[in-house]
Amino acid sequence: MTTPDAVHPAWLPPEAFRAIGSRRTLVLGDGLLVETVRDEVARACAQYGGRVRRGADGGAYDFVLALTTAEPQAAIGVRPDSAIGTEGYLLARHDGVTVVLADDPAGLLYGLFHVVRLGESAFTGERQAEHHRPATRRRTLDHWDNVDVHPVMGQVERGYAGGSIFWHDGGPRGDLTRVRAYGRLLAACGINAVAVNNVNVHATEARLLTDRLGDVAVIADVLRPYGIRVHLSVSFASPVVLGGLPTADPLDEDVRKWWTDVTDRVHDAIPDFGGYVVKADSEGQPGPFAYGRDHADGANVLAEALAPYDGVVHWRAFVYNHRQDWRDRTTDRARAAYDHFAPLDGRFRDNVILQVKHGPIDFQVREPVSPVIAAMPATRLAVELQVTQEYTGQQRHVCYLAPMWREVLGFRPWGPDGTAVADVAGGADGNGGGLVGVSNVGDDPYWTGHPLAQANLYAFGRLAWDPWSDPAAILDEWIDLTFVPVSESGTSADVERLRRTVHSIMDDSWRTYERYTAPLGVGFMVRPGHHYGPDVDGYEYTPWGTYHFADRDGVGVDRTRATGTGFTGQYPPPWSEVYESLDRCPDELLLFFHHVPYGHVLHSGSTVIQHIYDTHFAGAEQVEQARRRWEEAAGLFDPSLHARVKELLDEQVRCAEEWRDQINAYFFRKSGIPDVRGRHIP
Amino acid sequence: MTTPDAVHPAWLPPEAFRAIGSRRTLVLGDGLLVETVRDEVARACAQYGGRVRRGADGGAYDFVLALTTAEPQAAIGVRPDSAIGTEGYLLARHDGVTVVLADDPAGLLYGLFHVVRLGESAFTGERQAEHHRPATRRRTLDHWDNVDVHPVMGQVERGYAGGSIFWHDGGPRGDLTRVRAYGRLLAACGINAVAVNNVNVHATEARLLTDRLGDVAVIADVLRPYGIRVHLSVSFASPVVLGGLPTADPLDEDVRKWWTDVTDRVHDAIPDFGGYVVKADSEGQPGPFAYGRDHADGANVLAEALAPYDGVVHWRAFVYNHRQDWRDRTTDRARAAYDHFAPLDGRFRDNVILQVKHGPIDFQVREPVSPVIAAMPATRLAVELQVTQEYTGQQRHVCYLAPMWREVLGFRPWGPDGTAVADVAGGADGNGGGLVGVSNVGDDPYWTGHPLAQANLYAFGRLAWDPWSDPAAILDEWIDLTFVPVSESGTSADVERLRRTVHSIMDDSWRTYERYTAPLGVGFMVRPGHHYGPDVDGYEYTPWGTYHFADRDGVGVDRTRATGTGFTGQYPPPWSEVYESLDRCPDELLLFFHHVPYGHVLHSGSTVIQHIYDTHFAGAEQVEQARRRWEEAAGLFDPSLHARVKELLDEQVRCAEEWRDQINAYFFRKSGIPDVRGRHIP
Repeated sequence: MTTPDAVHPAWLPPEAFRAIGSRRTLVLGDGLLVETVRDEVARACAQYGGRVRRGADGGAYDFVLALTTAEPQAAIGVRPDSAIGTEGYLLARHDGVTVVLADDPAGLLYGLFHVVRLGESAFTGERQAEHHRPATRRRTLDHWDNVDVHPVMGQVERGYAGGSIFWHDGGPRGDLTRVRAYGRLLAACGINAVAVNNVNVHATEARLLTDRLGDVAVIADVLRPYGIRVHLSVSFASPVVLGGLPTADPLDEDVRKWWTDVTDRVHDAIPDFGGYVVKADSEGQPGPFAYGRDHADGANVLAEALAPYDGVVHWRAFVYNHRQDWRDRTTDRARAAYDHFAPLDGRFRDNVILQVKHGPIDFQVREPVSPVIAAMPATRLAVELQVTQEYTGQQRHVCYLAPMWREVLGFRPWGPDGTAVADVAGGADGNGGGLVGVSNVGDDPYWTGHPLAQANLYAFGRLAWDPWSDPAAILDEWIDLTFVPVSESGTSADVERLRRTVHSIMDDSWRTYERYTAPLGVGFMVRPGHHYGPDVDGYEYTPWGTYHFADRDGVGVDRTRATGTGFTGQYPPPWSEVYESLDRCPDELLLFFHHVPYGHVLHSGSTVIQHIYDTHFAGAEQVEQARRRWEEAAGLFDPSLHARVKELLDEQVRCAEEWRDQINAYFFRKSGIPDVRGRHIP
Repeated sequence: MTTPDAVHPAWLPPEAFRAIGSRRTLVLGDGLLVETVRDEVARACAQYGGRVRRGADGGAYDFVLALTTAEPQAAIGVRPDSAIGTEGYLLARHDGVTVVLADDPAGLLYGLFHVVRLGESAFTGERQAEHHRPATRRRTLDHWDNVDVHPVMGQVERGYAGGSIFWHDGGPRGDLTRVRAYGRLLAACGINAVAVNNVNVHATEARLLTDRLGDVAVIADVLRPYGIRVHLSVSFASPVVLGGLPTADPLDEDVRKWWTDVTDRVHDAIPDFGGYVVKADSEGQPGPFAYGRDHADGANVLAEALAPYDGVVHWRAFVYNHRQDWRDRTTDRARAAYDHFAPLDGRFRDNVILQVKHGPIDFQVREPVSPVIAAMPATRLAVELQVTQEYTGQQRHVCYLAPMWREVLGFRPWGPDGTAVADVAGGADGNGGGLVGVSNVGDDPYWTGHPLAQANLYAFGRLAWDPWSDPAAILDEWIDLTFVPVSESGTSADVERLRRTVHSIMDDSWRTYERYTAPLGVGFMVRPGHHYGPDVDGYEYTPWGTYHFADRDGVGVDRTRATGTGFTGQYPPPWSEVYESLDRCPDELLLFFHHVPYGHVLHSGSTVIQHIYDTHFAGAEQVEQARRRWEEAAGLFDPSLHARVKELLDEQVRCAEEWRDQINAYFFRKSGIPDVRGRHIP
């Protein structure tokens, strides 16, 4: 695959700092992150001829970045009317001076990156004061990185961008330049927390909590200047495997003390340590069930140890029976998280965050929103999204995920007048569990394997900051930061063509991916193990609980209360009724909730079988079109980047055709119903 | 899994030598293998009180083993009428003396083991002279062992009995005791050649030919006293990867010289070196196609180098396109070996052995005999059988393969009056390519994982010696050597019960395995990659060329000339006609040759769909019965061996039920035709 000589700057090319770098800038305030702001401005000025001062010196300024505690009114006569709030900032421009004010250094840093996004337009005209603050305090990335290379999963579980940027050769990288650059990129899109190891905690990684804690501390030191707190995935069995205790029973006094002592030491080494991530009693990971305790007992013992330090436990709700008998149609994996956790609502300590995957199964291209999100009003919830494209093309396919995430975040579980998923995650005053993304980053020079997959990481951060953002607008920001500054040698028509090209390929790419893969919300149909490419029956007769039940007459999973698994009953009205009803259920989720004959007519007017054929022909054709558009835009992009995307689009075309042909052949063989348009089905 | 304290003696427990060990024995002759015979007898005598002499001393003898060149008539007045022949022996008993005569030391060794099999009965009554000699000179085992542990395949590719007995920690084992014991076991069942490394030759293993040749020589030294010659799998690209030449073109003079020089050095290190095994242009292995040469060119350059040393090239005919497009129904993997090799008949040097898998696909539980075997009268052919149970239960299932092999060897490709496969492999005067078995042995204490799988190795050797042997009689031999001597403390009724138990579990176990797995010769339907357990569509939409084409109306592969791939035309009459005909095609191969509706009526009177249901219920039930019988016989076997077989039968029951349910559910979902007996199909 084509590889550039140097690490790609992603959305922070030096050219993006041109507007700032040519100004006279004043930075007022003290603190580590204020120094980061000064360094950023100074670096830009060194390139573009501006200057930066740390105290008002009577000179004229184009740009002032000031902490409110630094009493900026003395210098520029500006004072906010009210508190700006944690991580927030005010942005304004009057009398030729652009001003960013913040109550805390993090806010100043976020304000600086806002100005970077605006570019030259930040320094023209007047700008009424705008108050920006994040919708939620918690904007987290989970890295499923292992310190060692796992024999099956590799170093990064479900990673499609090379090795870990944190870990190499069994320890932290000696050169942390990439980590520093990563922290900067994350700050620029609004992320403020990173869990540095896999939720499946293997032997070496378990020790990061104790004798290898220093390995985590060096990473924390590098990320701290960008306002990013480090979290750690830990094994629930740590008291046994690391502490030598006879039990990890969360109600055992020695166990409790062990967690307290260990956490005290973590805090000594990493004063701003964020907290623990735990995958317990899931897919082979140890948990409280082994001791006859429930997950509230399990989470609370860790939360208690973290409470004195403003630390949290991210406790994953991804608990289900992965040794299900496929013959037993009464068991339903979709029910599992609700069945396990809803009864525990109110039992978790305040600093436990229950981390819920956005859908009830596992990051499929189309799932309903998890009913757990609406079931636990007395629990702090985080919504987990998968930035890494495990089930959406594995960073070999273009699949811009922001439209899907935006749909999830905007979904209103209690109906149109109720609150939205984004509100639940955000919590009152931003104190909810927020969003957690599974990172898509590795040591690939483009960070994400597919250069266009950078947009998913950027969009995740931007949606975590403001879940009501428009995915197309986020894409515009990303394009303008990533491509436009470095292509400015071209004409403005070229720039417009570049924007159009990227939009035409990416805007609808999630729905395109949906079209050529598993239809109508039924999910899976992927090759077992690695999950890439089609295998319609790959999981059909396995213990994993992911079935489609296709037979010669029809397809889909009956999850109704009337005749199925009863999963629809886990939703509040109106969705409990909408999903239950064959008539009202949205087309795109039909096979998630209902088993229907191939001749069933959708709201779209098409039959299920014809819909399968039509969408699969259309999806593959759209990928072919995307490739054509990319080829036509060759001159607009860096040649190396263009070549890599081209190679990946070739693979996407091949794979989309494989999906199309396998899915169509499978359902034609089973249903015997020909395509009404007479297209070739192999 | 239950594991004994010591390595199991397999079919050579010390007790099997009781009859010999209590006699007065004279061994006449010289040579390495004659010393082996003396050592065997001496060891037995040390345990049971007999004595052994190396020259006639005027005393009385019960047992004489003599080379004809040692002029035994001076001692015992016996002289054979004619030449006994290579590896053969005469066995007789007159006047209270049991006599084994041989022209060469190997024959003497085989004669000794014949007497071991006879036990006490060798020393009673009179015995007319019997002349024994092997049907073929070449009775070879291929080990798919890697020196290093391969990241995907492990150390032994398709190995189900632990690590390699030859290789450990990247080199030959320091302690070669197991290798010596293995050589003894092989000699006792008639095998005389072993290839010590995998036909897929990886980087380390390639070097066994050159700088790591010493590693092979130490193994050859240990096996030599048992009449076993060592062969080596080599990479066709060796001149490039080892020799640094710019090409491996077989017609290049430098390449030719390279092979000659290298082979000279091999002969210096291993004077009785057997030859090379080559898998070329197959599944990613390099071969002559890269240079525009054919496989005769490729094989001949190696054969030329080996010719001065009585060495041979085993050149595998397993060449096919493993990147086939599943959508293209005209390509047929079954055709590949014939299409590649039949046109080359007569072009191979005399010391090339074309090694042909017994069936056209790949060691499935049921395949027709490969048409290549009947297509190359001017080429020396070996028939390759898979002793390791890759597709027949992986040594977790009882599957006694001798009945299948016996069917293959007895098959007459030119009809009832023509010669048989055994004759082709044996060749004139035993000079054919013989049989090659893929070994099922590893460093497991029972050698073969499943203790009862030892019988497959034993039977392979016995069939290689005499392909017309009766599988049940071979099993009797194996039982009597393996179990009876050590259980003689029991009553003769117990011994009879033991024999009955083993026969009842093993005799029909191949057909039982066939019943609960892929039906009617259609093959595969296994989990991709590891090939264990069912996955009906696992290979259906893959590049591997192994399809069943099941749809809602029917199933099977049309390989007829009339409407299919034309594969039937690769057979001579009558089989070209029999297989072509839907009426005449044997039931058990129906779906290999024909695509038929589920309602098609078999010769048995059952429909295809009902046959599928019936055999799958019956197969699973028969495994359940086998487990019951084994449990009832608990007291008759060594407890540790009994426990291990019991554990494995539990797994076999589970897996057979999984096969039953997946296959039945798959075909019920597809056909919609219910079981006429109304049994539960999930």
